Order: sequence, then structure tokens, then C-alpha cells
Amino acid sequence: MIAEKRPHVVIVGAGFGGLQAARKLANAPVRITLIDRQNYHLFQPLLYQIAIAGLTPAQIAYPLRTIFRRQKNLTFQMGDVTEVNLAERYVKLDGSVIAYDHLILAAGGQTNFFGLESVERNGFDLKGVDNAVQTRNHLLSAFERASREADADKRRALLTFVVVGAGPTGVETAGALAELIRHVMSKEYPTIDMNESHVLLLEAGPTVMPAYPDELRQSTLRLLTGKRVEVMLNAKLTEYNGEQVALADGTTIPAQTLIWTAGVKAAGLASRLGVRQAGAGRVVTESTLQLPGHPEVFAIGDMAYVENGNGQPLPMLSTVALQQADATAENIRRAIAHQPLRPFHYKDPGLLATIGRNAAVARIWGLSFSGFIAWVIWVFLHIYRLIGFRNRIVVLINWAWDYIFYDTQVRLITKE
Amino acid sequence: MIAEKRPHVVIVGAGFGGLQAARKLANAPVRITLIDRQNYHLFQPLLYQIAIAGLTPAQIAYPLRTIFRRQKNLTFQMGDVTEVNLAERYVKLDGSVIAYDHLILAAGGQTNFFGLESVERNGFDLKGVDNAVQTRNHLLSAFERASREADADKRRALLTFVVVGAGPTGVETAGALAELIRHVMSKEYPTIDMNESHVLLLEAGPTVMPAYPDELRQSTLRLLTGKRVEVMLNAKLTEYNGEQVALADGTTIPAQTLIWTAGVKAAGLASRLGVRQAGAGRVVTESTLQLPGHPEVFAIGDMAYVENGNGQPLPMLSTVALQQADATAENIRRAIAHQPLRPFHYKDPGLLATIGRNAAVARIWGLSFSGFIAWVIWVFLHIYRLIGFRNRIVVLINWAWDYIFYDTQVRLITKE
Repeated sequence: MIAEKRPHVVIVGAGFGGLQAARKLANAPVRITLIDRQNYHLFQPLLYQIAIAGLTPAQIAYPLRTIFRRQKNLTFQMGDVTEVNLAERYVKLDGSVIAYDHLILAAGGQTNFFGLESVERNGFDLKGVDNAVQTRNHLLSAFERASREADADKRRALLTFVVVGAGPTGVETAGALAELIRHVMSKEYPTIDMNESHVLLLEAGPTVMPAYPDELRQSTLRLLTGKRVEVMLNAKLTEYNGEQVALADGTTIPAQTLIWTAGVKAAGLASRLGVRQAGAGRVVTESTLQLPGHPEVFAIGDMAYVENGNGQPLPMLSTVALQQADATAENIRRAIAHQPLRPFHYKDPGLLATIGRNAAVARIWGLSFSGFIAWVIWVFLHIYRLIGFRNRIVVLINWAWDYIFYDTQVRLITKE
Repeated sequence: MIAEKRPHVVIVGAGFGGLQAARKLANAPVRITLIDRQNYHLFQPLLYQIAIAGLTPAQIAYPLRTIFRRQKNLTFQMGDVTEVNLAERYVKLDGSVIAYDHLILAAGGQTNFFGLESVERNGFDLKGVDNAVQTRNHLLSAFERASREADADKRRALLTFVVVGAGPTGVETAGALAELIRHVMSKEYPTIDMNESHVLLLEAGPTVMPAYPDELRQSTLRLLTGKRVEVMLNAKLTEYNGEQVALADGTTIPAQTLIWTAGVKAAGLASRLGVRQAGAGRVVTESTLQLPGHPEVFAIGDMAYVENGNGQPLPMLSTVALQQADATAENIRRAIAHQPLRPFHYKDPGLLATIGRNAAVARIWGLSFSGFIAWVIWVFLHIYRLIGFRNRIVVLINWAWDYIFYDTQVRLITKE
């Protein structure tokens, strides 16, 4: 039973951070228990593709047990972590107690509606596979309903799609949706006048893509407009009743569909730890990513509040989670070897977002790219990062097909 | 408005029969309205593959609007037919009235539980995409729950999968499930002793595959046993409470999963027509497939009761529906041209069923095949019959991959 004496590392969450930490500890002298609510790892950057019927869930979600089939020091447990007891060093998983020697908190983020309950109730968000499939069913049903709606006002409301938040997810969703309508839906619904259809991108702030340099903001705006996305800046949403969007300046927009991409906050687990939280509910860590007073506990990814050199919090991006996972795996090895831990430093690998077919913006090696070249980089990077060789082949076939035939694949209405 | 004067053919149902009839009328001097509850055509013979996590819904379901994008004489309407008025010649679709000159009833079949309400409530059936996805989620969750169940009896019940009905669907499901457990789940759940897992195939009658010749019944039994499916013949189910299967002879089998494939009857619409119905609720037709007294109405496929030369009803098979669709399209052309209609004769193209990797049974050109050759025929025939070139490529990649790596693809638990 020597194996049982190896330190037990419990990892909560199998997103980018948790998955990477588990892999990096494959050859470490530890036993690992990886916990997630789902039995799959989700490639979150392409989740909006499910919502716009471009990809199927199985193409961007990969079963965790398959990923870790050959990693003998790891056990996967599917379930909800209902409690973390930092003092007694255990987590509760659906009632059963799992003690740890080291804990990695990597439970990720959730949608932040900033208290707008009407949006939470009546809008869609893109946080999980089920939400994205619901969004797809709703979008496609709107076209079916519009095709037999005689009242022009009702038809326009069915065909108006409001995306809120002009960060990368909002921009990608709005761009892809506009393309779907223009190139695919226009062929499949010959009786609908697609001039009645509108994709609106609402942004509360004064610019799209606030994290990007100015020339790429300009490119993004130009590319979006070219794809007939109507961008509304300084448009602060106050209510959405499922029929109509109300803005702070009194404007109302009849729309049967609203997709909210305007905020992310730390997973609910962060609030149940009883430790200090900063902006967006993220858990404040030491520079080594340890929890203050709990050197055996690390927090990484969207859950963790870590500042860069300028006193700004690191963004909620997969690149941050991945680097923090690497640093934490290394620090756990060092802790076991009784070596001093090392502080985490983020290396910015650049920025990249797509705006649909042939169009993307990128900031890499201090250079800005936009248009077709950035789009090719985006396609290959995203396919490369997908888990599973088969998924890569199938997604590549899908995209090549769509590129040639202006088609998209999965327009199935599976449930209302 | 000459186009509007062409006779209006309304087709209810876009399964094999309805779809084929619509295609065969592409160049006929008619307008067609095709109606279905779903916005996709489902390749029903592979539905069990969704339930056992072998294929994704998008691989066997294809959007109807995409299929008919280039057929200019056809309009698709998604919705429920709530009424058929044979006297006044219209159907009601979610409240709106659609008048017809010719009507093709092709609404298909539904699961027949033969009044066993406990099975209907607690068991699964394979009649639609949503049911199949639910079955998949339930199956996979059973393994997750078994992996943390300490009580051996409860664990065995979680790992016992009962398939009821030893026709082609039951045999295919049981065989594929046994393979999934033996080749895939055994690797992904190293802590589960797979000897605790059982796939039982229950058949009320004295033989598997009653429609097949005796040598193929024997082959089926041998192939199933080789895949460790436990076949129980003359086993008449009386109740299933979700925990335990009760048989007529007093036997009880603890099992958390039951899949019912033991019966099909005509869709509910058949009972609302007010016409004569025969076995399994199917609508009795003339030899021309017309409804008696309503020469402008045709019934085809699972909905229609048509006898072969020996006074036996034709089986509920896609091959029957396809041939009846061809005959009906031809008869509608003849009716429009004021020519006499022709009676329908079924040409039996043979029988074919798979029992998992490398194993199938077939009866073609009067010859019986079993084992690997029959399986190769099955694979290529099913891929060939799938709609959409892309779906064929993707399914072929999946199957080739699974064949080489003993893997299957979509083990996602998407919702409980």
C-alpha cells in the first residue's frame, strides 16, 4: 500500500486549468482525484458554435474518462462539490467526504447578469452545452415561427437577434449568426424576406473589444458592419421581458431572442469557501497562487484573482488558466520535495478573435493582424487545441465543407 | 398564378415514406406541402446508435429544409397535425387550415407498450432523438453511479441492462451495448468489475428474430452469446418499477435500466381519422393504397395496413415505406393524368441486421449470410442510405475509428 501514502491532490473542476494541472502531475509522486459536474471537458471557446448550429456538442466536448484512460495516478469523480472544509482539509462530493493533502480550486466561472433578473430569466447565455443547445433550438424555432407569421411586426421581432456584450464571445456570436442568416437561412426559408432579420450587438461601453488595441477595434467594427451586424455602442440594457429589450436611454427593441455575453464571474463555490474575494467574486491568492493561510490550497483560472504587474486583474482567459495550472503543478512538486515555491508570472501570448468566415483579428508578437490571415490562424489554432484527433478531423471537415458550400451542419430542433 | 392551379399534395410525415414520396413528385405538375413535427428527417435504423453513444444526433438526422432546398414545388411546414377532415379535404396544422387535393398519410409509428404502463413510465424506448439521448445519459450515469456505489447488490442493479424484444432493434441494441461495456467501459471504469455487468435480452416468444429463417435465428443466438448477451426466451414481462423487472413466471431481475423494443403501432393520427383500422392500429387501405371511399387519400408505411400475397400484413420496415411511396407518387401522377391507378405489390429486398462489431445476419437473393461478410454489407448499406455526403463521411470516420481502436465517440452526459 505504498501508493496510498503518496500525497493526495484533489482538483475541483476539469476546465482548462484543472485539466492541465491533472496532466502536468501525471508523473508526479501523487494520487489525483479530479472532480467535475460534467463527465466531459468542454472546449469553451467554440461553445457559441453550438448555439449557431455550426458544431455539435460531441465535437467540442470530450469525455474525461477517455482523456485520462492511461493516467494511472488519477481517478475521476463526477459530481457536485457541496462543501470545502479548509480547516479539516476535505471536500464533500454529493455527501461523501474526500480528504486532500493538496487542493487545486479550478471551478471556473459562471455568467454574470449583474443583477438583471429579467435577462437571466428570459435571455440565453453560453456557459454550458445544455444552454447552447437550448439557444440553438430557440434560434431555429424562431425562423420556423416567422415562416408562418402573417403579422409583420411579430415577424420582425422573431427575426431580431440581440447579442449583448462586445467582447470576443459577443463579437464571434454576432458575426457567426449574421453569416448563418445571410448565407444559409436565406436559402432555407425562401418565403422569408431576410431584410426583416437583424443581428444587433449591444455594448454598454464606448467600444467593441475593449481589451484589444485601437486598430483592432476599428477592424472589428469594420468587419462586423461588413457582415451586416448592427453595432450599438453606449447601449446600456435595463430590462428584457422576452419580447422587448429596454435600454437606459428609453429606446426599446422588439426581439424574441437575446444572448447575453456581457459578464463572467467566479463559480459559486468561491463564495462558499469563507475566504477573501475580489472583483467578480474571484478568490484572492498569494503570488504563488496559494490561498492566504492555506498553503496546501491553490486557486487558478477564472476563480482566482491575480494581478499582473500593473495592478490589473488577469483576464478570465484559457491562456491564463493554462499557465497557472503549469505553475501550480510545479509548485506542488516543489512543496512535496520541500523546496520553496515560486511566484506566478503571466506571459501574454496575444489576443485572437474571429468574426465569421474569412474574418478575424489577432495581436501576436506585438503585431496586429486582421481579415483573412487572422482567420486562418484562428481556424488552425482552434482545431489544434481541440482534444482528440478524431474531433479535429471531424471539425476540420465541417469547416472546410461550410467554407466551400456556405453551409452549416446541425440545424436540428431537438426540443422546445 | 398558374402555379397555384396545380393540384396541392399534402404529405403528413417526413420519415422514409413521406420523404421518398415528396422526392418522387419533384417533377410532377403539383405543389407539395410536407409537414412534420420535427425539422429533420431521422435515419431511424441507426437510432439505437445514439442510445449506446456510438453516433451523435446530427449524424443520423438531416434538416428537411436542407434536403428540399432545391425542390421548388415543395414547401415545408413544421408542426403537429391536430385534425384531418376527410370530408372537406383539409388538415389542421397547429390551428391553421391547409386544404389538399391529394393527401399522403405517412405519419409512421410509435412505441407499443401493449398497455404495460409501468414500462412506459419507467423504461426507455427508441422512437425519437430525444428519447435516445435520454437513454444515453441514463446508461452513462448508471456507470458513474456504480463507480461510487459500495453496496454490491445496488451496483449490480445499476450495471444490469435489460433489452426487451428480440427483433432486429432489440438484437442490435443488446449486441452494441454488450460491446460498449466489454471494450470501452471496462477501460474507462477500471474500478468496476465488469463481471457484475449484464446485458439481458428478453423475448416473450420462443425465438430471436421471428421474421428470419431458422439458420439465421441460430446464427443470431450464437453471435449474441459470443458477445456475452444473455438471451432469455419465453420470458414474458409483466411489470417494471424502475428497480426490478417482473416476469410472468415469477422471476424478478433487479435492473436500473430497461429498453423496450418489443412493439410498434401506428401513429396516434391513425385513430383520429375515423376510418377502419386493423392490427397495431394501422389504417386499412385498398390495394392501390387509397383509403376506402377517399380516393384522393393514400396511406403508406407503418401507418398503413397492407397485406402481402399470403394474407399477412407487411412488416413495419423502411423498405416497405419506400416502395409504397414510389407507388403512391406514381398513382398520384396517374390520377392527375386521368389514368387508372395501379395496385401495390411489395418486392422483398431481403433482411439485414447487425449484432455489433464484425457480426450481422442477412438474407439476400435467397441466400443467408452471417458474421463478418454480412456486417460489411450492413455497414456499407447503412452509410450509403444516410442522407448527406458529409454525414456519410463523418459516420464512416467514426466507424473506422471505432473499428480500429475499439472506441466509441459520444459518451457525454448532457442532462439528467
